[in-house]
Amino acid sequence: MGRENKVGWGFIGASTIAAEHMVAAVSAQPDHEVVAVASSSAERGLAFAKRHAIATAYDSVQALLADPAVQAVYISTTNELHHPQVLAAAAAGKHVLCEKPLALNLEDAVAMVKACREAGVVMATNHHLRNAATHRKIRELVREGAIGKPLYARVFHAVYLPLHLQSWRIDKPKAGGGVILDITVHDADTLRFVLGAEPVEAVALSQATAMVHDGLEDGVMAVLRFDNGVLAQLHDAFTVKHAGTGIEIHGEQGSIVGRDVMTQQPIGSIVLRTAAGEQTVRVAHENLYQRGVAAFCAAMRGEGAPAATAEDGVRSLATALAVLDACRSGNATRVATPLF
Amino acid sequence: MGRENKVGWGFIGASTIAAEHMVAAVSAQPDHEVVAVASSSAERGLAFAKRHAIATAYDSVQALLADPAVQAVYISTTNELHHPQVLAAAAAGKHVLCEKPLALNLEDAVAMVKACREAGVVMATNHHLRNAATHRKIRELVREGAIGKPLYARVFHAVYLPLHLQSWRIDKPKAGGGVILDITVHDADTLRFVLGAEPVEAVALSQATAMVHDGLEDGVMAVLRFDNGVLAQLHDAFTVKHAGTGIEIHGEQGSIVGRDVMTQQPIGSIVLRTAAGEQTVRVAHENLYQRGVAAFCAAMRGEGAPAATAEDGVRSLATALAVLDACRSGNATRVATPLF
Repeated sequence: MGRENKVGWGFIGASTIAAEHMVAAVSAQPDHEVVAVASSSAERGLAFAKRHAIATAYDSVQALLADPAVQAVYISTTNELHHPQVLAAAAAGKHVLCEKPLALNLEDAVAMVKACREAGVVMATNHHLRNAATHRKIRELVREGAIGKPLYARVFHAVYLPLHLQSWRIDKPKAGGGVILDITVHDADTLRFVLGAEPVEAVALSQATAMVHDGLEDGVMAVLRFDNGVLAQLHDAFTVKHAGTGIEIHGEQGSIVGRDVMTQQPIGSIVLRTAAGEQTVRVAHENLYQRGVAAFCAAMRGEGAPAATAEDGVRSLATALAVLDACRSGNATRVATPLF
Repeated sequence: MGRENKVGWGFIGASTIAAEHMVAAVSAQPDHEVVAVASSSAERGLAFAKRHAIATAYDSVQALLADPAVQAVYISTTNELHHPQVLAAAAAGKHVLCEKPLALNLEDAVAMVKACREAGVVMATNHHLRNAATHRKIRELVREGAIGKPLYARVFHAVYLPLHLQSWRIDKPKAGGGVILDITVHDADTLRFVLGAEPVEAVALSQATAMVHDGLEDGVMAVLRFDNGVLAQLHDAFTVKHAGTGIEIHGEQGSIVGRDVMTQQPIGSIVLRTAAGEQTVRVAHENLYQRGVAAFCAAMRGEGAPAATAEDGVRSLATALAVLDACRSGNATRVATPLF
C-alpha cells in the first residue's frame, strides 16, 4: 500500500515516551505512519523529526492540526496542555490518543470527552498497563473465578524516577507534576481493568523528600474501596530504587501474585496460589504500546473500542484526584462519578 | 535445683496460646515452672492442668493470686479482662506478662502500667514478633544503614482465622474482638521495633465479610506515618487463605524483604536488595515465645528489660486504636501519646 493510503499521525509533544515507545508503536501498524510532530521548541521538534524520519516538524499545534495529512493525533505534552490541545484536535476533526492524566481536574477531562464525541472523532487514553499480557491474564483469572470472590488487591509501583525525567514531574504543580497524577492514575486504571469494578472511596498519606518542590509529593500510600467491596492498597513513589513492582489480588479461595508487572516493558510473571498449591501462570508477552495503538486504529475504522477509552481516562483520573484530595485533607474522599 | 527453688507461674486463662506456646516456653526456662492455672470454667481449668502437668487448677483469679507458690502470672484471657486482672495481680505483688492488646482503651492500659510500677512488679506485653530472629535481623540491618535512610514499610498479615479461633474474635466487640485489636496491634509493635520509631498518624479502611458480626472488622488496610517520616502500609485480615505474610522496608539505597515472618513459628526468610544485587540474609531461627519468656525472667531477676515492655504494649495499642478510629471516622487520626 502506498504512502498516500496510510493513516497519518501527528505527534503533539516531542516527549520521551513518544521517542521511546510511541513512534515505533504507530510504525508497527501496517497502514499507519507518523507524518508530523509539533513541539513548542522548533529545535527539539526538528531533531525529533530527523531522528524518527518524520516528514514535517511544526512549532505550533495549530499548524499541525491544519495539516490535511494528519488524521489522528497522539498528545504527550505536559499535563496542563492536554485539555486545550484535545479540544483543538476535536475541533479540527482529528482522532485523539491522549496521554494520562487526561487533565488536571475532572471538569476539563469531561469536556474533552464531550468535545470528541460531538466532533465524531475517537478519543482514547494511553493507559498502557491494561495492554500487558500479564494484566489481561490476571483479569481473566479473576473473571473465571480462579481465586473465588476477590477481597483485596495490592499494587506496588514505587520506583526511582530516572534522572532525565526529574524535571516538571518534581517541581511544576501547574503542569500536573507529582507522583499521584503520574503513577497513581495508572494503578487506578489497572485495578479498574483487572477487577472490573469502580473505586468509590480513598484514604491516603503522602511523602515529600528533598527530590520534590512546591508542595508536590514524591510518594504516596493509599487505600481504595471498590464498588464490589474490594479494598486495594497502593504504594507509589519516585524515590525507591530496589523495591521492584507488583500487583496482587487476594480472594476467598486463592491469591494471584504478579511480579515486575507495573512497567512499560513486556515482562513480569504471575503466580496463582490456591488450596491446590502454587503454580506459575504462563503468559505470552506482547508490546504494550503496539497493542494499545492497534486497538485505537481498529476503533478509528469503527471496529470496537480502544483499550482504555476516554471515559476510562476520566474515571482513572477521578480516582487519582480523590487520592490527592485525601492526602491533602486527611479525610476519606469519595471518588467523583463523572457525568459524560 | 529442687522444685521449691523454682519461680512459680500462674496462668490466668486456659487459652489456645497458653496451651500451644506458653506452657512450653515457661517450662524451657531452667528455674521456672507453671504451678497453677485459673479458668472461669472449672472443667476447662482442670483439663488444662491435667494435660500440662500443672499442680493446681483454680476457678477464680482471686484464688490463684492468693497462692504463695505463684510469683508471676501470664494473662491470656479475653481482652476486656486484662485490665482488672493486671490490677489484681499487681495488688497481689505478682509479676505480670500480659497478652496483647493490653486493654480496650488507652486509659485502662496506662492504669495497668502505673499499678505494676507502684507495686514494684515487672510488667511486660507478650508481643512475640520482636523476638523473631528475622525481625531482629531486619532491625539490625536498618540500624546499620544497609538500605540507607528508610522511607517506606509494608506489612502483610492477612491470614485465615482458624476455625477453632472463630469465637469471640468475630462476634464480641466487648471482648475486644475484630482484626485490628488482634493483628494490627502486632504489626504496630513490630514496625516500632524494626524502625526504632513511633507512629504518629493513621488512615485506614476496613472490611467486614459474613465471617464477622456486631460491627466488627475482619480486614483492614491502613497507612501509618512514623515520627521519622517513614510511611507504612498494613494489610490485616481473618479471611485470606493463601496470601502468605511478610514485611518490607524500603530505603533510599535498598530494600529488605521478609517473607513468611508475621507468624508464631520460627520460620521465614530475608532478602536484601541493593545496587550490589540481591542477597539472602542468614538468620538463626529461635523459638519466639521462649526468647520472650527468657527476657521476662531476666527482668524479674533485675537483669534488663522485657522484650516488649508494658510501655511498648501501651504504645502499640495506641496505634491499633488510632487505626480503629480512622476506619470508623474516615479521618486521619493522631496516634495518642500515652502519659505514664
